[in-house]
Amino acid sequence: MDIDKLSSGTCAISRGLAFVGDTWSVLILRDASRGMSQFDQFRSSLGIAPNILSRRLKALTEAGVLEKRRYSERPPRDEYVLTQSGRDFIPIMAAMGEWGRKYNGDGKLSQLVDDETGEPIRAVVINEGTGRPLAATPMHLVMPD
Amino acid sequence: MDIDKLSSGTCAISRGLAFVGDTWSVLILRDASRGMSQFDQFRSSLGIAPNILSRRLKALTEAGVLEKRRYSERPPRDEYVLTQSGRDFIPIMAAMGEWGRKYNGDGKLSQLVDDETGEPIRAVVINEGTGRPLAATPMHLVMPD
Repeated sequence: MDIDKLSSGTCAISRGLAFVGDTWSVLILRDASRGMSQFDQFRSSLGIAPNILSRRLKALTEAGVLEKRRYSERPPRDEYVLTQSGRDFIPIMAAMGEWGRKYNGDGKLSQLVDDETGEPIRAVVINEGTGRPLAATPMHLVMPD
Repeated sequence: MDIDKLSSGTCAISRGLAFVGDTWSVLILRDASRGMSQFDQFRSSLGIAPNILSRRLKALTEAGVLEKRRYSERPPRDEYVLTQSGRDFIPIMAAMGEWGRKYNGDGKLSQLVDDETGEPIRAVVINEGTGRPLAATPMHLVMPD
């Protein structure tokens, strides 16, 4: 997969995938969204090889989805926290979780809960202009000039 | 990435990623959502190597996201169409496109348009129970017992 090509085409989906288009990246963002920030936290949560984790953290930082911050000078240690772009990716992960629950949800699963109502969250993608779920919205794709 | 492990954990996001957690798979589903169904259509749209395309189509079919249908007996030819699960993935791709447009959207991009209103679609993920955008919803994750 040629990331530069993905990132320079006219497809908005590709533009997003160029930043987070692999499983490890999404899982790192998932863990960051629940408060993890340090290399060893991600490594132990994901069981990911250190060199792969380093590469993904670097790519996510370059894409502006994570921000690298030095939290210790001696020894030098960095942490990785979600930027606004990274926080804006959380709802997409929630929608992905809803879909995973529906079509691959055997057994017990974790659940997002609304802090205010205490009720489970059910993530639905709507068209903001009409308020209708996208799944029930007839639509077509318009290519740029 | 161990897909079986991804698919057997308690994280709903992982359950989704186990089915579609790589860039090629999402791009194949994108093309299927705009009417492509034949091997050569996907290959030429994506510039993907035939062996990789075969593997992805097989995995997406096994995951129940695509359905394989024979459309010619002589010569034998199959096509791949979205199942209900695959159609339910379209709104997630739209949300991903919205995010890609916002954070990696330089230049001209394609746009989803509502067939009925003729207006561009703006995909937003909400909590169905409250109607509030997830981005503005304080929430926490509850692990299963």
